[in-house]
Amino acid sequence: MTAPASSPAHSPAPTADARFAPLANDRFLRACWRQATDRSPIWLMRQAGRYLPEYVATRARAGSFMGLATQPDLACEVTLQPLARYPLDAAILFSDILTVPDAMGLGLSFTQGEGPRFAQPVRDEAAVAALQVPDLERLRYVFDAVTLIRRELAGRVPLIGFAGSPWTLACYMVEGSGSDDYRQVKSMLYGRPDLMHRMLAINADAVAAYLNAQIDAGAQAVMVFDSWGGVLADGAFQSFSLAYTQRVLMQLKRTHDGTPQGTPVPRIVFTKGGGAWLSQMAQQLDCQVLGLDWTVNLQHARASVGENTSPGGGRALQGNFDPAALFAPPAAIDAEVQRLVSQFGRPHQGPGAGASHIFNLGHGISQFTPREHVSALVESVARHSSAIRAT
Amino acid sequence: MTAPASSPAHSPAPTADARFAPLANDRFLRACWRQATDRSPIWLMRQAGRYLPEYVATRARAGSFMGLATQPDLACEVTLQPLARYPLDAAILFSDILTVPDAMGLGLSFTQGEGPRFAQPVRDEAAVAALQVPDLERLRYVFDAVTLIRRELAGRVPLIGFAGSPWTLACYMVEGSGSDDYRQVKSMLYGRPDLMHRMLAINADAVAAYLNAQIDAGAQAVMVFDSWGGVLADGAFQSFSLAYTQRVLMQLKRTHDGTPQGTPVPRIVFTKGGGAWLSQMAQQLDCQVLGLDWTVNLQHARASVGENTSPGGGRALQGNFDPAALFAPPAAIDAEVQRLVSQFGRPHQGPGAGASHIFNLGHGISQFTPREHVSALVESVARHSSAIRAT
Repeated sequence: MTAPASSPAHSPAPTADARFAPLANDRFLRACWRQATDRSPIWLMRQAGRYLPEYVATRARAGSFMGLATQPDLACEVTLQPLARYPLDAAILFSDILTVPDAMGLGLSFTQGEGPRFAQPVRDEAAVAALQVPDLERLRYVFDAVTLIRRELAGRVPLIGFAGSPWTLACYMVEGSGSDDYRQVKSMLYGRPDLMHRMLAINADAVAAYLNAQIDAGAQAVMVFDSWGGVLADGAFQSFSLAYTQRVLMQLKRTHDGTPQGTPVPRIVFTKGGGAWLSQMAQQLDCQVLGLDWTVNLQHARASVGENTSPGGGRALQGNFDPAALFAPPAAIDAEVQRLVSQFGRPHQGPGAGASHIFNLGHGISQFTPREHVSALVESVARHSSAIRAT
Repeated sequence: MTAPASSPAHSPAPTADARFAPLANDRFLRACWRQATDRSPIWLMRQAGRYLPEYVATRARAGSFMGLATQPDLACEVTLQPLARYPLDAAILFSDILTVPDAMGLGLSFTQGEGPRFAQPVRDEAAVAALQVPDLERLRYVFDAVTLIRRELAGRVPLIGFAGSPWTLACYMVEGSGSDDYRQVKSMLYGRPDLMHRMLAINADAVAAYLNAQIDAGAQAVMVFDSWGGVLADGAFQSFSLAYTQRVLMQLKRTHDGTPQGTPVPRIVFTKGGGAWLSQMAQQLDCQVLGLDWTVNLQHARASVGENTSPGGGRALQGNFDPAALFAPPAAIDAEVQRLVSQFGRPHQGPGAGASHIFNLGHGISQFTPREHVSALVESVARHSSAIRAT
């Protein structure tokens, strides 16, 4: 089944969202739609994070991670922090993928050094039967944060909203916390696939409603993080992750106000460890951008899914600098950037949609990253991606 | 660069190792060389392990993991335990990949619940400069175990020796323990590639000498575990893992006694998370078998590297059942086995070398695996892989 990515090319100028200032830097959104840009846009997964002392300070004031996520003024503050330091081309909502299962009543907490934990993991038929798409009012704090951030951004760069994929949420919901073997969730998947399918359908509908509410609140692009898709076996990935990410995408509003005249809202899907399934993602997912982790060769990815001529109509590619390379000195970072930019090659950006690269890391930035190395990265990306367009 | 896998097909009957009984079940070795077998051979990574109560009992007598690994009689005992329960087609030496860096003087210990730890991790130029290929006498306990196991097997099934890949050893040597971000080792890789290359060269030569000594002691096949190859970025994998695995393979004895007339010793390479690089492995590695984790589609792997017509001359494929599927009931295990056997398809086993599948898990068996589910797996593999040969 092929679902060509819809494109706003050749459309009349869309109706903007009158609540907010016009967008000054549209490099990221143009690249999502594979339109020409002067250089590759760059943003960093987890760019508002612990490597920034100002983030650590705000987090301390909030008292806890969820305290930070649930107070829109503080979530707005940390979302904007990396933009004050670095000339990034997009902001991403500060939040967590687990807000959705928390709103389902599973009792989320973050323990120091141990990560997230659910008081009520979903382990049996009764627990699955009790699951429901949550009342979105319980997530009002997220939508308020989106609107506030969008106002505070004042059109500098676009704001990305996000959610976890149905499968990735299910991993946490069943395991009750992080896991290194996914024993509980895979036991359910292999032993009671009926329960797993029911949970994934509810998760998909919840994620779709959640992302639509973020779009209503002002998100200018949305991203689905399938952080744990890569732990699935071939076959299981297609049935238990890909199919439900597709179910999310099918329900999403295509424009900021849901009308054909509204500003289009591009959709990004990132499956960590999903390089083997890139062609299938391009064929089955109605999204504009595919995120790549660092194991993927950009040249191969472009050839297989990055061009208009590929099955499914081509996708913009986002990624995939190894976050650990940011521990190396700036000269080594520069060489690595140059290698990636050359590997993707010169973007093809004709009057219609071409091939484009959104520079990002292959995973979230590490808390141990030296801040000046991020400056070096951003500077190198601007320089090399401009230069390759001049060749 | 293409290094076709050498094959013993059409050779005169090789000279066997007169120290040991002739081999009764050669299904595994024949499949390594892609020769015809009545059904797919099966063995399980970590088959001598904590899911077996008899293993837990022997481990308790030994006092510690290293106590078990360093006493040949106990290592022999646990190696044979799974064969007494299940009709497996190969034994694998009970040992640990970290015996080699331990012999280099890094001070290995296993802490309860936390895994391996080195007292002296290799973090700077001086530590790298001090590294040497260890005196193999310090690993005598391993070779003694190989010879003892081989005697005790009395020709029932072949014995596989093994070692960690140079890169995987380097991960532990630099991190000093397991890691979830590989920060130290990747900092060295990106920041001081000269040091990393020096360490990997020494590791490769040490691993080659170690595997050759296992072959001398009686190992009938050898396997290189590149357990952490999959954490590397594309590009880095080729330079820092693949190249050094190749350096190991190039130095290995081709036959049990190193003469052209001796019994050939097949070589297996398993890179967890390496599915994206399968073609490059087949082109560059002089091995007979490639191991696959569960994310790889067996049909695609066979088409790209499993046939004689593929670049590099084709490889037997080993894997790739998701170990977590063993938590499911026997009927679900059977369906999953049937799916994998069908996905690989009917082996092509002509008079020369064809395409063959060695059934295994995609990673080590979990300590939580119900023992009767392993029986179900072995039975299902025999049934379905026999049946597909009759089609």
